[in-house]
Amino acid sequence: MIAEIIAAGSEMLTPHRQDTNSLFLTSELNALGVTVAFKTIVGDNLQHLTGAAAIAIARADIVLFSGGLGPTEDDLTREAVASALGITLHRDPELLQQLQARFAKRGIPMSPNNAKQADVLAGAEVLPNANGSAVGQFLHTSVASAGRIVILLPGPPREIKPMFAAECRPRLAAILPTRFLAKRILRMALLPESQVDARTAPIYRQYPDVETTILAHSGEIQLHFQSAAANLAEAQARVDELAGRIELEMDEAIFSSHGESLEEVVLLMLGMRGLTLATAESCTGGLLAQRLTAIPGSSRYLLGGAVVYADALKTTFADVPPELIASAGPVSGPVARALAEGIRNRTGASIAISITGIAGPGPGTGPDEHKPIGLVYIGLADDLGTQVKELHITGDRDRIRWWASQHALELIRQSLL
Amino acid sequence: MIAEIIAAGSEMLTPHRQDTNSLFLTSELNALGVTVAFKTIVGDNLQHLTGAAAIAIARADIVLFSGGLGPTEDDLTREAVASALGITLHRDPELLQQLQARFAKRGIPMSPNNAKQADVLAGAEVLPNANGSAVGQFLHTSVASAGRIVILLPGPPREIKPMFAAECRPRLAAILPTRFLAKRILRMALLPESQVDARTAPIYRQYPDVETTILAHSGEIQLHFQSAAANLAEAQARVDELAGRIELEMDEAIFSSHGESLEEVVLLMLGMRGLTLATAESCTGGLLAQRLTAIPGSSRYLLGGAVVYADALKTTFADVPPELIASAGPVSGPVARALAEGIRNRTGASIAISITGIAGPGPGTGPDEHKPIGLVYIGLADDLGTQVKELHITGDRDRIRWWASQHALELIRQSLL
Repeated sequence: MIAEIIAAGSEMLTPHRQDTNSLFLTSELNALGVTVAFKTIVGDNLQHLTGAAAIAIARADIVLFSGGLGPTEDDLTREAVASALGITLHRDPELLQQLQARFAKRGIPMSPNNAKQADVLAGAEVLPNANGSAVGQFLHTSVASAGRIVILLPGPPREIKPMFAAECRPRLAAILPTRFLAKRILRMALLPESQVDARTAPIYRQYPDVETTILAHSGEIQLHFQSAAANLAEAQARVDELAGRIELEMDEAIFSSHGESLEEVVLLMLGMRGLTLATAESCTGGLLAQRLTAIPGSSRYLLGGAVVYADALKTTFADVPPELIASAGPVSGPVARALAEGIRNRTGASIAISITGIAGPGPGTGPDEHKPIGLVYIGLADDLGTQVKELHITGDRDRIRWWASQHALELIRQSLL
Repeated sequence: MIAEIIAAGSEMLTPHRQDTNSLFLTSELNALGVTVAFKTIVGDNLQHLTGAAAIAIARADIVLFSGGLGPTEDDLTREAVASALGITLHRDPELLQQLQARFAKRGIPMSPNNAKQADVLAGAEVLPNANGSAVGQFLHTSVASAGRIVILLPGPPREIKPMFAAECRPRLAAILPTRFLAKRILRMALLPESQVDARTAPIYRQYPDVETTILAHSGEIQLHFQSAAANLAEAQARVDELAGRIELEMDEAIFSSHGESLEEVVLLMLGMRGLTLATAESCTGGLLAQRLTAIPGSSRYLLGGAVVYADALKTTFADVPPELIASAGPVSGPVARALAEGIRNRTGASIAISITGIAGPGPGTGPDEHKPIGLVYIGLADDLGTQVKELHITGDRDRIRWWASQHALELIRQSLL
């Protein structure tokens, strides 16, 4: 079974807007055992949309449309699909009444244009919309070929998502072969994708029935495992067995075996140990604290900290001796150490972390003038003492800052193991 | 002239990855006067890709492919396009030599598979790749119909972008009618889109020759104006005239009339006045400082500040009296005021900004227990005194934090006008 997703809307053919519904729809279809083979994005043009609909109906078993169900003259999905399938649209009197009632309730007159939202493809079931006026349509037809399914859905994410869950998922599950899907996600920080693949491929290749996907982005590698079977226990057992073997191989490099983010894991570990954390950030300028405070409930373990961007603030907020900054340079191991220890003393946190580095694109100043862009020092102070890590991060300012914060989180996690 | 963009790659048919090259390509094509009418995403499947290529060649004047030019058996764009156009591929001896030299230089043997990267469509020009081994191809053909242009480009953004700029832009400009494009972007913070549209539509509707687009996201409204004419001065004059009239209407609400971000504008204004800034953030937890320090050169005007997430740190770093926190609650006007004034005293900054609020999803604590989620106070202290703003922000934790930082930046900007 293959599917095609057609996103209708001229705004998605500009440099500013992108179809995002197809990611959600793909995830839903995959869970039902359906592969997405084509995605088409087409503008609000009847000829283009009709052509795209005819092509999709000819090459896919299931065709999903998102968008183009509104009341304006630009909303053409209903007409295009009817024309492509060679079937008629009829105006549903019950839907028309609902639309009129909707307008009456708001005390505004309904323009004649709006009535087209009551037009339904011959043979289609109407899918109610809990969050808007555009209903969906579900057509299980043998018009074009046996067993073809055509689904019309609204464009706004807050309408399409609940409509798919409530109306399409059960209808598709009833038509498609029964199938149970088990998933697991393992997450690792900072390792190169090639290294993770080299170490895990000999294991996951032994599980051809489990679909393994490696995703790499922003200092993190994710391993996604997915297995389908005739019953859930069987699917879950296969996925868990593979995940278990990978966990043995990658060991402490895995920070999350059920999908939690690195920030969440760090906060969870602090919580389990009853510890608190404070930060002193120079080149990351608040990024590390911001990532941690983005997690609900972080206030129990993260006390806060200082953004010590200017050298003077390194002294004001973390008591770093000005002579040390002048001699070693603000981007140096000794300053990272003093920052971590200073912020720990000031805040009384169990663990303190400091970051100082040259994020570029300009060079450092004073004693740091000739140090390379991407040089970063991270300090961690706790009851066991203070450790300092020297890093050389490649890439632009954004990447250097992000990876520095990622290294800091991973260092905290390692210290809590 | 209409174009179709085909992105080839099975990873873009998963829930995890999306085609992004088409946004950049659309912007480039629009600048050349070409409208994108279709985007197709197709997997690494010869039959599917050949079918999609044939359809595109039949319905668009210019067809651009991205991806599928690598050396693996999954890289099928060359074969699919040759088959769809009914032309041959020939192995270019010079390209083959270059590939062999590339491998020899690294001291690794070239597998026979790699040779296919030297296969060129009959009649196509080879487009050199400064950042990888996959060359592009440019075919101006009359095979399928007169004047059709087919372009093959590599998938990685760091390869396709420079290749388009260096090799495709000049070739297309030479073929397409000469056209000059002028653009302007006006940016506003915090206003509702409907209000901006209501005030500006009566003006921009008088300029049907200028394409106006309103984009709204994350507490910001952008007005994009674009005009094409036979000479640049004429196009620029129309866009500038419209932008000028909109600037008069929206006045100080416009923070940027040449596309700069709100963070950049705030730093620029601080720089022009020779002023410095410090921050004290509670619910935003470093987000404001992080946004400002993401801008290169920000260290000249942003001293830094404190993340005063725990109540005790509000006293430690900004001298807020504990009695005040206990009586008024940490999320209150008096605490926002004391935070701004305290951080200004400690850092010696010309301007200090404070943010305290309830970002949710849990309630506040102590005296804040019954205050609503989304309640945020922002304090600004400068030579003129201290002002405090009370905000009620709707939405989830991420949205409340982002909008709070947006309001803070806008308050700083207003104070600098």
